[in-house]
Amino acid sequence: MVRTTVAPGAFAALLTESDAPPAPGTSFFDTQLGFAVRRWCPPLLGLLPHCPPERYLARRAELGAGEVTRRLLRASGIRTFLVDTGLPGDLTTPGELAEAAGGDAAEVVRLESLAERVADHTPAAGAYPEAAVDAVRRAARTAVAFKSVAAYRCGLDFAPGPPAPAEVRSAAGRWLTARRPGTRLTDPVLIRHLLWAAAGTGLPLQLHTGFGDPDLDLRRGDPLLLTGFIRAVRHTGCPLVLLHGYPYHRSAACLAQLYPHVYADIGLAVGHAGVRAAAVVAEALELAPFGKLLFSTDAYGLPELYLVGARLFTGALSALLERWVAEGAWSAPDAARVAALVCADNARRLYRLSPVPPASPG
Amino acid sequence: MVRTTVAPGAFAALLTESDAPPAPGTSFFDTQLGFAVRRWCPPLLGLLPHCPPERYLARRAELGAGEVTRRLLRASGIRTFLVDTGLPGDLTTPGELAEAAGGDAAEVVRLESLAERVADHTPAAGAYPEAAVDAVRRAARTAVAFKSVAAYRCGLDFAPGPPAPAEVRSAAGRWLTARRPGTRLTDPVLIRHLLWAAAGTGLPLQLHTGFGDPDLDLRRGDPLLLTGFIRAVRHTGCPLVLLHGYPYHRSAACLAQLYPHVYADIGLAVGHAGVRAAAVVAEALELAPFGKLLFSTDAYGLPELYLVGARLFTGALSALLERWVAEGAWSAPDAARVAALVCADNARRLYRLSPVPPASPG
Amino acid sequence: MVRTTVAPGAFAALLTESDAPPAPGTSFFDTQLGFAVRRWCPPLLGLLPHCPPERYLARRAELGAGEVTRRLLRASGIRTFLVDTGLPGDLTTPGELAEAAGGDAAEVVRLESLAERVADHTPAAGAYPEAAVDAVRRAARTAVAFKSVAAYRCGLDFAPGPPAPAEVRSAAGRWLTARRPGTRLTDPVLIRHLLWAAAGTGLPLQLHTGFGDPDLDLRRGDPLLLTGFIRAVRHTGCPLVLLHGYPYHRSAACLAQLYPHVYADIGLAVGHAGVRAAAVVAEALELAPFGKLLFSTDAYGLPELYLVGARLFTGALSALLERWVAEGAWSAPDAARVAALVCADNARRLYRLSPVPPASPG
Repeated sequence: MVRTTVAPGAFAALLTESDAPPAPGTSFFDTQLGFAVRRWCPPLLGLLPHCPPERYLARRAELGAGEVTRRLLRASGIRTFLVDTGLPGDLTTPGELAEAAGGDAAEVVRLESLAERVADHTPAAGAYPEAAVDAVRRAARTAVAFKSVAAYRCGLDFAPGPPAPAEVRSAAGRWLTARRPGTRLTDPVLIRHLLWAAAGTGLPLQLHTGFGDPDLDLRRGDPLLLTGFIRAVRHTGCPLVLLHGYPYHRSAACLAQLYPHVYADIGLAVGHAGVRAAAVVAEALELAPFGKLLFSTDAYGLPELYLVGARLFTGALSALLERWVAEGAWSAPDAARVAALVCADNARRLYRLSPVPPASPG
Repeated sequence: MVRTTVAPGAFAALLTESDAPPAPGTSFFDTQLGFAVRRWCPPLLGLLPHCPPERYLARRAELGAGEVTRRLLRASGIRTFLVDTGLPGDLTTPGELAEAAGGDAAEVVRLESLAERVADHTPAAGAYPEAAVDAVRRAARTAVAFKSVAAYRCGLDFAPGPPAPAEVRSAAGRWLTARRPGTRLTDPVLIRHLLWAAAGTGLPLQLHTGFGDPDLDLRRGDPLLLTGFIRAVRHTGCPLVLLHGYPYHRSAACLAQLYPHVYADIGLAVGHAGVRAAAVVAEALELAPFGKLLFSTDAYGLPELYLVGARLFTGALSALLERWVAEGAWSAPDAARVAALVCADNARRLYRLSPVPPASPG
Repeated sequence: MVRTTVAPGAFAALLTESDAPPAPGTSFFDTQLGFAVRRWCPPLLGLLPHCPPERYLARRAELGAGEVTRRLLRASGIRTFLVDTGLPGDLTTPGELAEAAGGDAAEVVRLESLAERVADHTPAAGAYPEAAVDAVRRAARTAVAFKSVAAYRCGLDFAPGPPAPAEVRSAAGRWLTARRPGTRLTDPVLIRHLLWAAAGTGLPLQLHTGFGDPDLDLRRGDPLLLTGFIRAVRHTGCPLVLLHGYPYHRSAACLAQLYPHVYADIGLAVGHAGVRAAAVVAEALELAPFGKLLFSTDAYGLPELYLVGARLFTGALSALLERWVAEGAWSAPDAARVAALVCADNARRLYRLSPVPPASPG
């Protein structure tokens, strides 16, 4: 989360993936996510649901960022936070997040950010390939997973196999020569080099797919573009987690059914869909095996997003399961078991998290 | 609308985008749109809902085209008709439509038709580029928007930037030399020339995306193919309205969220979806900001399509909003405000229409 | 169906399109299809719905494959089985299936398997083209339709027109020279040769589109890739049936609306969607004309899949139609007529099956 107090204008901007002010006459609060924040968060700050944004922001400032964060995170019911630490900005660490939430946390290492840090400290192109692989291996000792934003950087239509060493050397030479501080990694050869290094560690590898910010060409984020890579990497046993996926989340679910090492996590789609979260979750639950669908919030920046992501997802899942049990299509014990899998057990198994003592997750 | 009385056989053909007779043993009335017409229109002609097509057509002939048109248009609740005047055939003018409806009307100028008229009167290829730009500028004085059917003519995967003057001259030369009267504009260079000329006027630019007639390769109508153009044209401030979009309407909604100058209008999808209109509207309402979703009917040919488009859209929206308010997910005032935005205010703001005195839109 | 008794481990594998064991800690029973089997099949074996898989499999073994098959098939309500006979493995014939079900059966000839059998008996490449065409023509005398799995073999983005004779000869030469027994046909020229030979017979031609096994690159199974072929083959009058389609079933439905010779059959999608079958059927019913949507189960391997496919489809359709009638959107007689079309009459008309004496299909 953003560490400093969020100014009222900045708050609304954190509710969208857009990088621009809202269109004339419109507000970022007038979205499903904005409405979901106004539904779920005000009561935790002592206000009525759906109160006007201005009132909510005033009360937020009055209570202070620390108190608001604690209240919202603790109400989210999330026990273990897996945090992508590769985002730019002055953000809280996983440890700080866990402390505010009264839970625990672990790190997901973003490969592209890791490579950019390696490049910052490796002026010689010849040393980059080994230094990058070393950095990946070192990170694997403490991280629970890797993450790649290849979808943004080069599109998911990259060549499936590992790049040849000579290719990597030559791409590294080009990148390091042209590079100025802050230049992002976009070279598909170097990104493939990272993906294969990560696959070699055996940790789960998360891949951003589908909807994201305006840097992304959404068509190049279609998870089906990963089919070749999925097949190529299968023999390594590296589990792949397809994140978000919207509006291609049904395709991500198909891949999770077809390939034993593929999982689906519709994180970001749920928060942005707001009242429509149940529709999106239901679509993911068509083809994804119940042991392979994961909950996440994709929250970032605002503590509100953790709460809203959790409330929308669990509310959507409960509503669907209750309906299916009421119709006789599912049994009640099966529904309870699937809820436990999707909300916690699948993640604990996949990311090798320690089990939680039995208790209500709120 | 078609100006002459529509023969019974021709009526059914106007219910589909297909260009062929129905398959053996089937009828164009046996579609969601056909069923929606039979639900909503007969009562306005003094018949029971769902009466057989033959009976409806007989009653329609008995009353006469003028009376039927007046009854259906006035019952649609539409006050202001924005009419694409670039369709072929003997159609009513926006003014005639407005008079029959007891409302007002404004013109949307179809760029490709405009260029074809310019070509008809500009035998010299060298004069075409300037003549086309002049025609666009002149049209901008009275039109409220431009529209392009590039999706049909060259696909939406055209090069994003404006074409160089030499490219335009050479493409104009090729087109005007080969051209016979009635030949349609399909050259992507000349279409880009028109799009950029329109963008320069500051008027909103509507782009057909998604489902249309069999001329269209639907894959090349994916609104995401416009991503490059959307980015390139952004600095001009020209608002882009992605029309229809089905089955890619969720992608169109994503673009409306990501880019400040992009709007979504699912017009045609609603009528064709019939009883499923609420499902389609709900999907568009997932990612589209509420200030950027627009109502339209895409009605053409038959007055029935205005009525059905309006009834289905407002019925779908009401049903969704009522459910969301009943669940506590939205507040009632928010729902009323969003309904007003989507049904009228967004269009009034975007197309700079004069405000309407407060009254029930029927 | 598999002729021998299915071992418990093999049973679960027949519930998925995956070719691998389930991921660690997961089970193929934990899918929508697995839950649907546990809902619908146990009562026919004297057990409670949703009983544990182990109990179901034990009871299945106790009753014996023959008895289980008879009970499940007879309860499916399917009268006429159209069976793709081109699958590998020791499977029951259409006649055996019909006998067990107490119904009748007809054959759908898979073009690629037919060509592979021709190749087995035609060592001379020069003789292959004519032999293949002859085999197609001979098959047309008894089959009710052809089927192609071009989506798996070369992708649906093949060139639309018929290949030139010289191209076919040269491709046949390459294939027969390189071929070893069991080698599958993947050459797009030879597949197009088969498709056009089939189109020449006038029988309906089924095309696999959308979700299938891991051999498939799902993106290359998008039915819209067939647009060029659909247009090219239109003049022959050959009806095309787009099978499955998921998650592109809305696109398949659009094609069925646009082109008079195109039909949609969402078979496989329904079983895999389980409790979500109604959502998938509803999406197909948006654009597909009601005279052009077909029921199938895509059942294969297990008699359970016939029962589940039939129960899910008819249950989904009934639920949708009842709701639409209750809302007043459809009339009850229209709903009954559409149900009859989609569940039986469309198939009887398209595949020229003999009519069935009026009776409840269960």
